Formats: sequence, C-alpha cells, structure tokens
Amino acid sequence: MYGEEIVIDGLQYCNWNRLYFEKLRNSGVNAVHVTIVYHEGSRETLTRFAEWNKRFEDYKDLIFHISSPEDIRKAKSLNKVGIYFGAQNCSPIDDEIGLVEVMRHLGLFIMQLTYNNQSLLATGCYELEDSGITRFGKQVIQEMNRVGMIVDMSHSSERSTLEAIDISSRPICISHANPKFAHNALRNKSDVVLKNLAKYGGLIGFSLYPFHLPNGSNCTLEDFCKMIATAADMIGVDHLGIGSDLCLNQPQSVLQWMRNGRWSKTMDYGEGSVENSNWPDPLPWFPDSTGMKNIYEGLLNCGFNKIEVGKIIGGNWLNFLEQGLNPQE
Amino acid sequence: MYGEEIVIDGLQYCNWNRLYFEKLRNSGVNAVHVTIVYHEGSRETLTRFAEWNKRFEDYKDLIFHISSPEDIRKAKSLNKVGIYFGAQNCSPIDDEIGLVEVMRHLGLFIMQLTYNNQSLLATGCYELEDSGITRFGKQVIQEMNRVGMIVDMSHSSERSTLEAIDISSRPICISHANPKFAHNALRNKSDVVLKNLAKYGGLIGFSLYPFHLPNGSNCTLEDFCKMIATAADMIGVDHLGIGSDLCLNQPQSVLQWMRNGRWSKTMDYGEGSVENSNWPDPLPWFPDSTGMKNIYEGLLNCGFNKIEVGKIIGGNWLNFLEQGLNPQE
Repeated sequence: MYGEEIVIDGLQYCNWNRLYFEKLRNSGVNAVHVTIVYHEGSRETLTRFAEWNKRFEDYKDLIFHISSPEDIRKAKSLNKVGIYFGAQNCSPIDDEIGLVEVMRHLGLFIMQLTYNNQSLLATGCYELEDSGITRFGKQVIQEMNRVGMIVDMSHSSERSTLEAIDISSRPICISHANPKFAHNALRNKSDVVLKNLAKYGGLIGFSLYPFHLPNGSNCTLEDFCKMIATAADMIGVDHLGIGSDLCLNQPQSVLQWMRNGRWSKTMDYGEGSVENSNWPDPLPWFPDSTGMKNIYEGLLNCGFNKIEVGKIIGGNWLNFLEQGLNPQE
Repeated sequence: MYGEEIVIDGLQYCNWNRLYFEKLRNSGVNAVHVTIVYHEGSRETLTRFAEWNKRFEDYKDLIFHISSPEDIRKAKSLNKVGIYFGAQNCSPIDDEIGLVEVMRHLGLFIMQLTYNNQSLLATGCYELEDSGITRFGKQVIQEMNRVGMIVDMSHSSERSTLEAIDISSRPICISHANPKFAHNALRNKSDVVLKNLAKYGGLIGFSLYPFHLPNGSNCTLEDFCKMIATAADMIGVDHLGIGSDLCLNQPQSVLQWMRNGRWSKTMDYGEGSVENSNWPDPLPWFPDSTGMKNIYEGLLNCGFNKIEVGKIIGGNWLNFLEQGLNPQE
C-alpha cells in the first residue's frame, strides 16, 4: 500500500514555503532532492545554503536537513520530509578542485557536471559539439568519487555522459530525464546511455516535466508507466526511480533564470519557444507531490509487483544514496 | 606527569607542513585551535578550508579534523593532533547573518568579532574610540550562541569586550591574550574584563607571544607562571588555559598581512615599530610546542597541584568547548 514504502522524489525546485511543505509532507513523500543552484558560483551558493538553514529553522515541524541516507528512514518515522541538496551545474565549485569537498561538507550530495551548455567539466545537451569530459572534469569526477558526491548527467550530452559513466569509479545518476525512446528530446537519454548507466550501477529518475514526455502535458499516466515498464525490460527495475522536476509556483522569471542565467544577452527559450515560452501546463494526474500515489498505483496496474513498485517509488534511490554518499578511505 | 592529561593549545598560526606536524605530535599536544583566516572574506575562507582538507589528506597519519569536542579525546588515544578552526576576524561572514551557520557547518568553532580595527560587529583594541557592539554585532552574537560558535574577543577593545560578555547568552573566550596587570599592552585585558569573563563562565588562554609578555622575549618561565598564579587568585583556576599564539616559520609577509590586511596603504606595525618590525625573538623555554611541557612543570613549581595544572594545560579548554559548541535547540 502507498505509504508503507519509502517515497523519494529525485528532483524538485519549487517555490518553498509553509503551505508547500505541508502539502509535500501530507503527500507521503519522505525525502526530496532539492536543487540549490542553477548558475550560482561558490559565493552565491553559500547564500542559498543560508536560505535553506533559515527554512529548516522556520519549518522544523515539517522538514529537516538530511545529512546521511539513514536520515531518510528517520524522516519517515518522524513524519517529516527530509531534504538533501544537489546543484544543477558545477558553478558552486568555480574553477577550484578543493571546493568539491568544501561543498560536500556543506551537504551538497549531488552535482551535475553541466547544465545545457558547455561547462568547465563537460558538454551540455544543447551544444552543437560534444567534446566530452575536460581535463578539469576528469579530476573533479575523481574527487567527487573520493568525497562521496554523486555525479548527475541529466542535462549533459551523449558523449560526455558516456565518458562520465566510464571515468567515474562509482555509479552515477541521471536524476531527472526520460528515455529518448519515449520522447526524442535533446534532454532525454539514448538507449546506449541507459544501458551503460545501468551496467555500472547507475540510476535514472523519470521526469514529470511535460517537455520531457510523449505528448507533453497530455501524456497519460498509462503512457508514463508504460515508458517505465519498457525501461525496466531494457535495463532492469533496480536502476529506476522518480525525479519529478516539479517546479511549482515559480514565476516565469525563475524559468528565465534557469534558461539564461547570466550567459545570454538574447532570450533563450530552452525546451520552449517564442510562442511557447512559459511553464508548461501540469499533468492532471501529477499536479503536485500527491501524484506520487497515482504513479504508485499506475505502476501496479501496469504489471509491476509491489516489491518492484516500492523500489521505483523510492527504494532504489535510497539504496543508491546509501552506496554513493560515503567518502572513500 | 606531562602526557597523562589532555593538552590543548588555544591558538596557533604556524607554517604548516609535515615536519611541523611531526614536531607538534611529538610534543604531546593533543589538539590545536588553528587560525584559518585573518582578513579573508567568505569566498577566500572556502579556499582556506580547501587547503586544510588537503592537509588532512596529506598528513592523515599525524593530524585530523575535530568535528566535535569528543574528537579531542580520540586524538589523544590515536596519538594524532586534532585540529579545530577559528577566525581571527568576522570577515568570513561578510555582511550576512546566515553565513554564521554556514561557516559553523564547515567547522568554524570560534570567531573573533574584531581584529584590532573596527569591524561590522565591534571595536578592535587599536581603535581610539570604542563604540561597543554594533546592531549587526548583537544579532551575530545571538546567532553564534544559537549555532554553537564561540565568541572570541582576544583582539577587541575594553567596552566591546565587556558588552560581548554581557550580550552573549553563553560563555565567551579570550583565546590568546594576557592580563594587563602583567604587561600593560593594548592587546592585553583589564582586571574588570577578566573578572566579568570568569563571572559568566568564560576562559582566557595565556599567550606566549613576546609582545604580550612582561619583558618581551626575556620573560622567564617563572614570570609567566607567576602571571597565571595571580590570575588564578583573581578569577579562579577553572577559567585559565593556554593560547600560545605560536606563528612558527612564517615569513615577514605573513606578519604584514596580519597587521595590514588590505586596509592600509601605509605600513602598520601593530605591536611592533619601524625599528622593531619583524617577528619577536622566541622565548627560550617556549621555542615551539615542546615548551608546553616546560609550562606544565613551571606551574607545578609555582604551587599549583596536578589537578589544577591539568586543567590549565588543556582540561579547561576541553570543558569549555564541550559546553560551547553544541547547537541550542
């Protein structure tokens, strides 16, 4: 039954406030990977951490900071939502290898090597040329492996992703994206990426962001679950999770920040277009975290058994985090 | 016997390398409060933390990072030196209250509110006017109390120090300075400061820096121990420790950085002068941390019993840290 298993959302970037956290807690989600920055450098990242510390003070009846994977079980037993941090870009480390460990000490569990564009580490999924992992990138992956920070290639391009899987001595994740076989978008992942990801113990979190889905906002729950079933047939159920990419109650300015950062003088529309520049309409069966229950039931109806659904809804993420976050000796 | 008790040096800023850490470990010192920054803002402080992380990697056979006071006992049992961090100025928090907790999460245990000059929080000991704790300063002290970061007023002036003792809901320290009754320097502390410090549970670490001592580099071990005995008579033995202010093997450029930071276009000589601008000559009985054993024996010869000497040589610091570093609920 939904509510018995650990439920983890592998990515959100909502407009955080008490009302939202109440809804989130009541939805039965036990832990959320929240994006702390998109384009912010190390100094601004400190302010983002400070803002979260204030939220942990203000909403301590509803949320708390997860400092190790065991805290996720604690969150469930306390009926609170555990929060852990990831960066959608490598901007928090500036150009400094030593900041990987510093950011890990502050609780940065997960870091994308790129966000759509070329970074100092790797190539993003919207670049025309993919030159793979850079010299700095190779060292950063090694350092992330050492300190127990998880490599995330959600917004990276094909070759860079394959190289990251290969270079990393520990499994990596694609926290929020979908297979290209379901919807052929630049942000989605090829069969070869999915197979290599799984071969080396990685995990993909299926995204509920309409731009990543077949038929966009009209994607049905059945279509979504069928996509997961096909992926399970291809790479096995142990490598699948949810990374909703939920960005609730955010103004368009936040979408523009994600897409443009400070790198573009002209408006970049990312996965949208001039005619379709705003947030996409939400899925009726996933209006917010309450939709996790629908996914749970949809997966059962799609032929998964209860143990498998428990893995997809959170068990796999928990296991992956338990393996990925401990520092190496 | 020296070596049975916990030995803590309440402040050092040496030129850290393997040879130094070997000497330090062999001297029997179990833990050292090291200065991580003098004038560095938050961004540069991250680099200082990164440099220390590298040292913890490179010299893990000799030192390790103390993340709670219990680790000090662990250091002794492992025959390694435990390192914990303090800032000599409030520069690591820039002008942002939220960075107090962020820096505490990175392991900043202790922070001076000022370093000689007026800061955003309080007045330093070399200013002509002492306007006391500022509006921002009051909030920062409260925040430090909340998160378990210890207020240090070693380089602060009289009124600011008295106000900090009064405003802080938890005991504060003067990690490295001496009583004015022993040597009347701007950096040393008045009887009223010492009495108020102790009244509210605080601790003073006696400094071995010759500029803080009677007769400078000619101060004898007996004079040093007599100063401690007089202070014990005045405020009780439980409020006394050692904060050597040892700055071994540092070039003069480091002394100039301490004194001038980036605030002065003309050379400021601090406690020195144009004619006497370099590091003072070391005390023959305290050439480095091996001198802790001399202090131990000097205190016994001066009439303290073994229990009292154990407190002064480290037990009081340990007790103070145990009380001061836990966050408030």
